[in-house]
Order: sequence, then structure tokens, then C-alpha cells
Amino acid sequence: MTTTSRRVPKSRLVSFMTQALVAAGLPTADAGTVADLMATADVMGSDGHGVFRLPNYVRRIKAGGINLRPDIRIDKERPAMAVLNGDNGMGHLVVSEAARIAAEKAKTCGVGWVGVHHSNHAGPASLYVRMLLEHDMIGLYAAVGNANHLPPWGGTEMLLSTNPIAIAIPSQRFPPIVLDMATTVAAYGKVKLKAQRGEPMPEGWMIDREGKPLTDASRAGEGFLLPIGGAKGYGLGLTFGILAGVLNGAAFGRDVIDFNADASSVTNTGQFILALDIAAFMDVDDFKRQIDGVWGAMKSSPTLPDVDEIRLPGERSAHVAEDRRAHGVPIHPDLDRVLADCAAGLGIDPL
Amino acid sequence: MTTTSRRVPKSRLVSFMTQALVAAGLPTADAGTVADLMATADVMGSDGHGVFRLPNYVRRIKAGGINLRPDIRIDKERPAMAVLNGDNGMGHLVVSEAARIAAEKAKTCGVGWVGVHHSNHAGPASLYVRMLLEHDMIGLYAAVGNANHLPPWGGTEMLLSTNPIAIAIPSQRFPPIVLDMATTVAAYGKVKLKAQRGEPMPEGWMIDREGKPLTDASRAGEGFLLPIGGAKGYGLGLTFGILAGVLNGAAFGRDVIDFNADASSVTNTGQFILALDIAAFMDVDDFKRQIDGVWGAMKSSPTLPDVDEIRLPGERSAHVAEDRRAHGVPIHPDLDRVLADCAAGLGIDPL
Repeated sequence: MTTTSRRVPKSRLVSFMTQALVAAGLPTADAGTVADLMATADVMGSDGHGVFRLPNYVRRIKAGGINLRPDIRIDKERPAMAVLNGDNGMGHLVVSEAARIAAEKAKTCGVGWVGVHHSNHAGPASLYVRMLLEHDMIGLYAAVGNANHLPPWGGTEMLLSTNPIAIAIPSQRFPPIVLDMATTVAAYGKVKLKAQRGEPMPEGWMIDREGKPLTDASRAGEGFLLPIGGAKGYGLGLTFGILAGVLNGAAFGRDVIDFNADASSVTNTGQFILALDIAAFMDVDDFKRQIDGVWGAMKSSPTLPDVDEIRLPGERSAHVAEDRRAHGVPIHPDLDRVLADCAAGLGIDPL
Repeated sequence: MTTTSRRVPKSRLVSFMTQALVAAGLPTADAGTVADLMATADVMGSDGHGVFRLPNYVRRIKAGGINLRPDIRIDKERPAMAVLNGDNGMGHLVVSEAARIAAEKAKTCGVGWVGVHHSNHAGPASLYVRMLLEHDMIGLYAAVGNANHLPPWGGTEMLLSTNPIAIAIPSQRFPPIVLDMATTVAAYGKVKLKAQRGEPMPEGWMIDREGKPLTDASRAGEGFLLPIGGAKGYGLGLTFGILAGVLNGAAFGRDVIDFNADASSVTNTGQFILALDIAAFMDVDDFKRQIDGVWGAMKSSPTLPDVDEIRLPGERSAHVAEDRRAHGVPIHPDLDRVLADCAAGLGIDPL
């Protein structure tokens, strides 16, 4: 049995996922949009958020958990903000629209904030903040995760999700600075990947209900994730989660649906995206040159013993993307088998 | 020699600090504003940011490092944002004004973002996000710290500060949720407090230039602070620091003045504050009731063995404030001596 990943070009990933989503019931245009964003996630190195999620999405669509013809619409609006009703459509469609509206509002007001309710899982946070870079804007995004994986600090009832935060900042000569982080030590997608590959987790990712380290990824259901910096990561996840969830009328805390266990209930996922129009603050080229300067200062600074080089957020992703654009996205044999089953179930050709 | 802290009422702290700042050269009204905010920090339990900072501020004012008659003015503006030039005034005055403008803009636009340059150290971040609560708004704030205390992740050149982030969210029956955190495991103010008291630091706060744990607070100058969650905290501090610094034309990276070592150079401190008008999103009372619900869910959830109770961000501060309003702010004998020297130098009565 091979354990070597084969490489699949992005275009093939897009066409495969488009076919799969159409076969599952999505309109062709929407399927194409979602598939392209998912494949982009794979190219950028978000391995837990691209084609890996396809079987999950297909299962949810087939179970009736997604509105295939959503009326994505603005519920509330002021010049610099909007609350968007995702109407239980695919999260990728809802958050893309939120990013578009945020950019439009930032263009006139300098700042645009769009909160979302009745959305769904939308892949990696970085996808959406990156959309703002082409408008010469800075993006900030947060989401309520689609399953609760951690208790409040010191507790044992899982009331919080990994609530990711992403920020994208453009530069000129260097890749953009793109932070995309769960407020937990590890994202749950990484735990799932370890479980699928039968690999152990490092100590510090999870603890069990006694507070002891949990390293067996297949037993992830028996424990919970740890927040970064203890009480601080709990506080960040809680407050950004309130901004992404409660403030938009989306699910939070005990109302969060575990989308791994329940494929049919409406998740009422909440997200927000903030766009800052750099031109409102200063000359755009001047700003980008200054971000190049930040890159230069960090990269040229001396390292600790045993550290090769300083990295900036988004740097690894830029390198991975360069490699994957040239050589394709690596598909692990275990994932290949899961995708083959998914394709067979839908009656389409395998990847 | 006594080691018991005496208790001083807030009103006495305010009048003492007002006198001190006036004696140092600040106009009476501004001195009163700054003193009140500093004493509020003490009451709320931000021990490293209240009267503790007075000698430092006085030294800077006397060294000519602060503009005593600043023309705090808007440089750039759009409907939902502004860049404020602090004209090197006291940070408390500059950021208070930023919060006021942010609230005004949020009232019409739903969201208001104000970035600041040529500001100065402004005390605890929580002071300013709390100002938005009285407008039924949510506040988000970040600042570039006033001395670099940590390198980029894996490095040894101190290019970053502790760059604090604060968020305040109102509730109805419970205290507001107020997160106020350095993106480092410990704020540098806490290190200074340990040094002043001759207490060791816990392992994990700092490492030395070899990467080894540093616990002797008096040797803090030989090492650097550690970010929360390793590379994640570095990424958070870096990106929020860019939003607070570079985007506003304020100091960042190698341009940051170490205000402990240099009392006269213009710091060009950068901060930003974001106001979200809850009424633009949903009924305000409904929102506050939902935040009460978040409190209830967290507080009633079961704890790990050896944990007394679940806490929410801002809860400790609310308890401390209740005690200090009733019984006064504890002033440690070491601090008392430092303040007596400061008062003597200014020719005013001691605290």
C-alpha cells in the first residue's frame, strides 16, 4: 500500500469538486465558486480546509443541511456596516459576499464591517481576508467554529469553538502578511488530519476530562483543545466569538451545532469581516513599502541557536503555493480513498 | 520595615496625581483628566498602569519628552474613520479623544475606527474600550507598546513590543466582558512590578539570549518576553502592531523609542480604537440579555479538579474595583517610597 502523496493540479481539483458539488445538488455557478475557493485553500497549504472537507460538505448537502438556492441578503445596514443573512447557503458563498460588501463600504467610509448569520463552514479564514488585498485593503476576519472543542478556561463543558482570527496586510516586493490562526494551540482540522493519518498529536494540543495530556488523535472525542496562552486564548476566542456570533444573531455556546455529528440541522454559523481602505490612512505605495521594511527588518534579524530563519505569517503559505502551482497539490493515499468513495457515491469520475 | 500595603481612596490618588502633574507643567484641566484615568486604572486593578507610572511620566515631562500644550487634531478623515495626530501630548488625552471620535462616527456609520500617531503611553488598554460601554457600544483597541521587549519568533533582536489588545462588551446584570491582554505571556509592567518588589518571575515569562528561562526580574534587561502560543502570539502582536503603528504613521519595529531608557525623544506612539454601535446590529437590551446568557452558561459549567470557578474576562477587575471603591487602593511600601521621592522632587505634599 503506497503512502506517497500524488500531485494533482489545481484545475483538476476544481473540476472534480465542481462536478461533485453539482452532483450533490448545487447550481453549477455556485459549485464552481465553492470548488475554486476550496482548491485555493489547498494550493495555499490549508490542508484541513480544501478537498479534505468535500465528503463532509457532500454529506451535509445530501442530508438537507444546506439551502441550495439561498437568498443571501442584507438584514441591517448603516453606511459602514451590514448584517448579512446567509439563508443557510454554503459558507463560501456567504462570506465571499460579505467580503465584497465590506470592501464596497470601506471604499467610501474608510472602514467596512459585515457580520453574518445563517452562514456555514467557509474553509480557511485566510481566503476571505486575502480577497481584500486586491482592493489595497487590510482584512480582519473571525468566525464561530462549527463544533465546540473547548471549555472556558478551567472548565470541562465544551462551550467554545476554535474561533479562528485572520488578518491580511499587503506589501510590495514580499508576499502579503497573512495571519490565520485558531485561538487554540491546534485547529481541530489538524486533529482530524492526524486521526485520518493515524499519527499521534504533540503534547499540549489537547487534554482529557481529568486535565491530563491527550495525544491519541483517534480519542479526540474524549478530550478538548487547549487555548493559546491559557486564559488569554480563552478570552480571545470568547470575545471574537461574540463579535462573530452573538452580535450577528448567530449561534454561540450551547447553541452551536456539531457539524461532524449532525449533518442536517441548520448551523446558523456566524462570521464577520472588516475591511480597512489603506488609501484613507496614507499613500498606498508608501504603506506597502513600509510593510516591505517590516519584512526586511524581521528577516535580517539574528536567530536563536538552532533556528534557521525568522518567518513572517503568510510566508510558509506563499512558498507552499509556489510549489503547488508548479507541481500540483499533494493528495495523501488515505484522502484519495475517501475521495474515491465520495465520487462513487455521487456517480462521478474519481479525482 | 513594613511590607503591608496601606489603602488610599481614589479621590486622594486623583488629587495627588493632579498636583504632581500640574507641578510638572501640565495645564490643570489636562492634569485632572490624566490623573482621573490613572486612578481609575488603579481602582480596576491595573496595578502596573496607574500611580505606579507617575514617576515615569513626571520624568518624561521634565525632560521635555511631552508636549504640554498639544494641538490634538484630525489629519485624515472619512465618514467611518479618522487618523488623529496626538501632537506628542499625554497618551491619555489623545486616546480619550480617539475614543470620543470613534463613538461619534459609530453612531451614524455603525462602525467607527480611529487610528492615532504621535501619541504616548496611555495606561491600560481597558480604560478606553470601557469608555464605549456607556454609549452601548463594543470597543476594540490595540497599541504599539513603548519599548521593544521581544524578538520575532525564533529571533534574538527585540523588534516587537507587548502590543496589547482590549475588547469590551456590555451585559445587563453582570459586569461587562472586558479582555485586556498583552500578546506576551506577561506584560512588561508585571515584570517591572516583580523587579520593584524583589520577587522572582514564573518560568515561561521570559527567556535569555541563549533561549534559556529567565526568572530573575532584576535581570529583565538581559532577556526578552515570550509571546502567547509561540508563533501565534508573535503573529498577533505583529499584525495588530502594524494596524496600531504603521497604518497610522506611528513608530514600529526599530523606530520604537524605549521610554524606560530615553525620557526626551518623541515616542510617536500608535494606537487604534474601533467602536461598534450595537443598535446597528440588533436591539441593545436583547444583546445585553444574550451576553448575560453567555455569563450564565460559562459560570454554571462544571470545572476541572482543583479549579474553584470559571471566570470571565473583566470579572476579577469588577471584584477588585468593588473592594477598592469601598476600602481604597493598596499602595505597597516600596511604591510609597518612590512616590514620596517623586513628590519631594516636585515640591508637593506626599500621597
